[in-house]
Amino acid sequence: MKVRDFEQGRCFLARLDLDAEIIGQITDLAKSEGIETGVFSVIGALKQAELACYDQTAHEYRTIRVDGPVELVTAWGNVSLRDCRRFVHAHAVLADSEGRTRGGHLMKGGVFAAELCMQELVGEPLIREHDPATGLYLWGDR
Amino acid sequence: MKVRDFEQGRCFLARLDLDAEIIGQITDLAKSEGIETGVFSVIGALKQAELACYDQTAHEYRTIRVDGPVELVTAWGNVSLRDCRRFVHAHAVLADSEGRTRGGHLMKGGVFAAELCMQELVGEPLIREHDPATGLYLWGDR
Amino acid sequence: MKVRDFEQGRCFLARLDLDAEIIGQITDLAKSEGIETGVFSVIGALKQAELACYDQTAHEYRTIRVDGPVELVTAWGNVSLRDCRRFVHAHAVLADSEGRTRGGHLMKGGVFAAELCMQELVGEPLIREHDPATGLYLWGDR
Repeated sequence: MKVRDFEQGRCFLARLDLDAEIIGQITDLAKSEGIETGVFSVIGALKQAELACYDQTAHEYRTIRVDGPVELVTAWGNVSLRDCRRFVHAHAVLADSEGRTRGGHLMKGGVFAAELCMQELVGEPLIREHDPATGLYLWGDR
Repeated sequence: MKVRDFEQGRCFLARLDLDAEIIGQITDLAKSEGIETGVFSVIGALKQAELACYDQTAHEYRTIRVDGPVELVTAWGNVSLRDCRRFVHAHAVLADSEGRTRGGHLMKGGVFAAELCMQELVGEPLIREHDPATGLYLWGDR
Repeated sequence: MKVRDFEQGRCFLARLDLDAEIIGQITDLAKSEGIETGVFSVIGALKQAELACYDQTAHEYRTIRVDGPVELVTAWGNVSLRDCRRFVHAHAVLADSEGRTRGGHLMKGGVFAAELCMQELVGEPLIREHDPATGLYLWGDR
């Protein structure tokens, strides 16, 4: 297990913009506020979204399109660095008008309304590196 | 994007009361501890619940009744002010005895057992105002 | 409602080990870092898992086996003490390659990749005691 400890920095609450793309908005907040490491949650509603499931054998993401309006029951994720840029890793649970849920890696989503809580973590930044065993970019030793 | 930053205040862990109504209990904690802004998570089990999905066209919540006992897989939400009162906005994922899930906006729920983590945020309170574009009460500019 | 307030301690981000058991890894982190009280979230992917739903009448957990690889859409939980040992209480939402979700109490899971955020809470530790009304071990008065 690779472990790094941080101190809490600022905590941001944000109302995301109607019709914006959710991952882009979260990335923009991290950039504009200078957050290199953080964790976040979001609740709200999306106009449409794209989830993904990682194929653990083929080492590829399989896309899952979610058409039509859905509740963003919750999204949770983190911010760290990859290739010297801020990288947002987010997972989400979505629900339709009857409460039926779909979940996975959140690739993108069109915001209807979304309330974000971003906790800045202060310490040596985590850097994602390619991990041959999984094919993913995971936190490395640096 | 409307962004406000806060400092962490106290963090509360609470065991909610058997047979209490969950949103009422969270609101009571915010009132009794003087929390104007906060974020929270809950895990536990409910005797029954009511979820909702917001109709993005009609601008109305559609109610989803969940009869019978369910795991409260997770609830997540925030506390802010609306009409000068503390307002709890919560979403939840519920699961039945076979692990089948339903999710959405959490309107109410009867507590079997529930463990709450409430993080107080210290700063200028966020105030919900009617947003004509969505029909929702979202964080305004004040 | 039984309420206790804490101050934030350290916040840990950890990359869990390939093929490790997830609850064991979270428990190990709590032990090695001396965390008696904390809250955590995890996102990632599991090779297989075991969920459970608590039967509120029979006062027994019903096991739900999840074979095959799944996204760990999110896990959320807490650390407190039971019988003088650190006890991890975790719930999780899992999703398959089509985004179909299952959820419940997370008994165990084999890690493919998992990113953990553990927030240490500093204060008088919470101690789980048997609660006759529910049959569960809940936070007591001590």
